[in-house]
Amino acid sequence: MNINSGAITYARENQKRFIEELTEFIKFPSISTNPDNYEGIQLAAHWVAENLKKSGCQQVKIIPTAKHPIVFAEYRPSLPAEQTVLIYGHYDVQPVEPLDLWKSDPFSARLDGEFLYGRGSSDMKGQIMACIKAFESIIRMGELPLNLKFLIEGEEEIGSPNLEDFLKVNKDLLSCDIVFNPDAGMISSTAPTITYGLRGLAFFELFIYGPDHDLHSGLFGGIVHNPAQVLCDTISRMHDLKGRITLPGFYDLVESLSPIERSEFGRLPVTDEYYLEQTGVPSLWGEEGYSPVERIGARPTLEINGMYSGFINSGAKTIIPAYAMAKISMRLVPNQEPSIVHRQFMEFLQANIPETVRWKLNVLTGGPGCITNRSLSQVLSLAKALEEVWGIPPFYKREGGSIPVVAEVKKILGVDSVLTGFGLPEDNIHAPNERLHLITWQRGIEAVIHFLYNLI
Amino acid sequence: MNINSGAITYARENQKRFIEELTEFIKFPSISTNPDNYEGIQLAAHWVAENLKKSGCQQVKIIPTAKHPIVFAEYRPSLPAEQTVLIYGHYDVQPVEPLDLWKSDPFSARLDGEFLYGRGSSDMKGQIMACIKAFESIIRMGELPLNLKFLIEGEEEIGSPNLEDFLKVNKDLLSCDIVFNPDAGMISSTAPTITYGLRGLAFFELFIYGPDHDLHSGLFGGIVHNPAQVLCDTISRMHDLKGRITLPGFYDLVESLSPIERSEFGRLPVTDEYYLEQTGVPSLWGEEGYSPVERIGARPTLEINGMYSGFINSGAKTIIPAYAMAKISMRLVPNQEPSIVHRQFMEFLQANIPETVRWKLNVLTGGPGCITNRSLSQVLSLAKALEEVWGIPPFYKREGGSIPVVAEVKKILGVDSVLTGFGLPEDNIHAPNERLHLITWQRGIEAVIHFLYNLI
Repeated sequence: MNINSGAITYARENQKRFIEELTEFIKFPSISTNPDNYEGIQLAAHWVAENLKKSGCQQVKIIPTAKHPIVFAEYRPSLPAEQTVLIYGHYDVQPVEPLDLWKSDPFSARLDGEFLYGRGSSDMKGQIMACIKAFESIIRMGELPLNLKFLIEGEEEIGSPNLEDFLKVNKDLLSCDIVFNPDAGMISSTAPTITYGLRGLAFFELFIYGPDHDLHSGLFGGIVHNPAQVLCDTISRMHDLKGRITLPGFYDLVESLSPIERSEFGRLPVTDEYYLEQTGVPSLWGEEGYSPVERIGARPTLEINGMYSGFINSGAKTIIPAYAMAKISMRLVPNQEPSIVHRQFMEFLQANIPETVRWKLNVLTGGPGCITNRSLSQVLSLAKALEEVWGIPPFYKREGGSIPVVAEVKKILGVDSVLTGFGLPEDNIHAPNERLHLITWQRGIEAVIHFLYNLI
Repeated sequence: MNINSGAITYARENQKRFIEELTEFIKFPSISTNPDNYEGIQLAAHWVAENLKKSGCQQVKIIPTAKHPIVFAEYRPSLPAEQTVLIYGHYDVQPVEPLDLWKSDPFSARLDGEFLYGRGSSDMKGQIMACIKAFESIIRMGELPLNLKFLIEGEEEIGSPNLEDFLKVNKDLLSCDIVFNPDAGMISSTAPTITYGLRGLAFFELFIYGPDHDLHSGLFGGIVHNPAQVLCDTISRMHDLKGRITLPGFYDLVESLSPIERSEFGRLPVTDEYYLEQTGVPSLWGEEGYSPVERIGARPTLEINGMYSGFINSGAKTIIPAYAMAKISMRLVPNQEPSIVHRQFMEFLQANIPETVRWKLNVLTGGPGCITNRSLSQVLSLAKALEEVWGIPPFYKREGGSIPVVAEVKKILGVDSVLTGFGLPEDNIHAPNERLHLITWQRGIEAVIHFLYNLI
C-alpha cells in the first residue's frame, strides 16, 4: 500500500508532463483507412515504441504486418512472476472528415480548460498513455512482480485485418493470463464501467450500376431505372415497420435476453433524455420491444454509414447518375458470424434488386461479437480498482461497439479480456472535435495503478 | 437560289476555319453553376460577342445581369426588312465531374476523326456557331432582307434565373416575329428533327438532419433514426409499383395523349434496342402503359440527380451520419406549374418524413413545359430547309428536356419558338466525353442557311 500511494503521488506530480507526452502522440496523423498515409502511421508507431522503452519496458519491437506495423513491448521483473497481463491498444485513428466542422486542427492537440481536443485523444491514444503512464509511475517506485506485455496495433479502425495472422504466428510471444483492454469507455465521468459484452461487425459496400455514363435527365428521364432510386428502394426494404432487419435468417442465432439480464440493463444510469442530449436527435428510434440500452448492447442493428450518387456539389445538374453507392454495416451480437451475415445479405440483394440495373457487394471488414465472464479474478481486481478511485462500485454493461481483438484473443490465445476505459460518451469519438476529459483521464491512470497492484 | 448556293459553297470552303473558331470557343471553361467561375464566363461572353461582330452584326452588346452577362447582337439590312428572327443560344456549359472519366481535358477541344470532343461542343457552343457561321456565309454573298437578332445567355444550365427579368426589361430590344432555337438536337444523324414540345423542370434539394454530429455506429446504433435510411425510405415512396409519381395531385393537370399523338409517337424511328444502346442499361424501366418515347416526351418524371451522406471515401468508417442530402428534380409536361409541384412536394414530405429527424427542402430552379403550333410558317420554312439538306422530311417530336427560355419568350414577348438542333443523342451532353459530330454540324450550318433564305 505504501508503494501504491507512492505511485499515485508520482502520477499526480508528473501530470503536466504526461499531458505533454500525450500531446506529442496525438500530433501524428495516424489515420489507418487512408492507403497513402504511410508516414503518419510510421511516426506514431515509432513514437509509442520509444515511449514504452523510456517508461520501463526492457524489450520493445516494431513488427511489420501486411499493412500497418504492430508495436510489442515487454516488462519482466528480475524474479520470475507468476502472472502475465497483456495490455492492448491501437495507435491508429479514424479519418477526420468533415474537416470544416472541426474548431481546431484535428492534429494540433489543443488544450482548452479540462479538455484536450484532437483526433485520437479519447479513441485511443489517451487510453494507451493512461496505461503506459500508470506503468511508469509504478516502476519508478520499484519492481512490479507481474509480467506485462503491450500490444499496440495500427489497424483497429479498419477492422484489424492483419491481427488474426499476427496472433496465430506469435502465440508464444503473446502468451498471457489475461488481456487488459481500455478501449471500451465509461458511461459518464461519475460512472466507472466494466464492459462484459461487445457487438460484432460486418461492413459492406454496395454498388448499383445503371446507365454506362451519366445521362441527361430530360433526354432519358422516364426510360431507365435511376440507380440512386434503386439503391433507396433496396435500402428501404432492409428494415420492416417495426425496425427489424429483414435479411433472411438474420435473427435465427440471436439469443433472447434473460429476465435477469433485462433487469441489469434496467439498472444502468442512462435515460432517454441522456441519449437525446448525447445525439441531438428530436426523438429516439429503434426496434420495437426493447429499451435503448438493450438495443445498443444486446440487439443487432444495420446502419448506412455513407451514401453517394451523381452530382453533389452546390447548384443543379440535371443528370441520371451512372451509379449509386452505399456503405452499409451491421452490428452483430454473439453467435452471429460475419460470413453467415454476408450470405444472408447476398440472398436479400438477389431477391430485392431488380434486373433493370447491375450491382456488386464488397466485404470491407468484419468480426464476431463476444461476452466475458464477470466472475474472473481479474474482473474483480479491476472492479476494486475502479471503486478505489471513484468511490462507487462499477457499472457492468454490454457495449454496442465492436473490438475485433477481444474475440480473436479468445479464439487464438484462449484468453479472456477485461474491458474498461476512461473515454466519455461526449468525447465525439469518430466525429469532429474529438476530445479527452483530462480529469477523468488522470483518474484512469490512478485506476490502472490500483488494478495492477490488485493483481499481485 | 444563286445566292443560296453561293453561301453553301462559302460555308464548305471555310469549314476548316469554322472548326478552328469553334475550338477557340470551347476552350473557355464557362461552367455557370460554379459560383467562383467569373473568368471562364466572362471570356466566353466576350469571345462570342467579338465573333458576332466579325461575322457581320452591326450592333453587339454584353449586357450584365445579376449573375452572368447576356450577349445581344443585331443585323439590319440597309433597306427596312419586314421580318425579325431572334436566334437564341447559351454560351454556358455543364460542370465536368466526374473528371476521371474524361479521355482528354474537357476544355482542350480535341479533334478525333469526325468528332470534336469537349464540354459544350454539342450543348451548345457548336449549335451557336452553326448559326453564326450560316449567317456569315449568307452575308458574305450580299445583304439578307431580314432583321436578325442574337440572344446568347450564360445561365441556361442553371435554369436561366435572370432571363425572365431581362426579357421583361428589354422587350423593345428583343421584339421579333419568331425565335429560332437550335438547342433541341435531332433523333439521329439521318433523322432531321423539329421539336414542338418541351418538358418543364422543378429542381429541389432535400436535406434530412439526424444527430447533431456523426455518431459512432456501435455506441449509438439502434437508438437513432439514421438520416440516410430516412432519406431512402422517403425517396422510395415517391414512386408506386407502376412507376407513377406519388406526390398528391401530381397528375391532376397532366393531359392524356390523343390517339393521333400516340400514333405520331409510334412513327418515331426509335426502338427499345436504340435506347438500350444509348444508355447501356440491362433493360428499360418506366411508367406502366406508355412507350419509351411517350414517357420521355409526354409524361412527367422524377429523378434523383445526386445523393450524399456520411463517409464516401475508400475504406470503412463506422458512423451514423449527421445528415443526408438528395438533389431531386421533376420533368414536367404542359400545364404543370413548378410552384404547384413545389407545394405538392412539401405536402408529400410533411406526410412521409417521420418526426425522428428534421428536414429542409430548397428550390434550386424550375420552369414550365410548352408546345409549339406545327403549322406556323416558320416551322414550315425550317421543315423545307431540313429536307433540302437531308433529303427526307423532318421528324416531329416532343422532347424530354427543358428549355426555360421557350416558355418565357412566349409569355413575355408573345412569340413562338421554332426548335431544332444538330446535336446527336450519343454526343454525351451533360456527361464525360461530350462531343460534336462534325459532318452533322456542317449539314446544320447548311440547313440554317436554307432556313434563313426560306423565310424571305
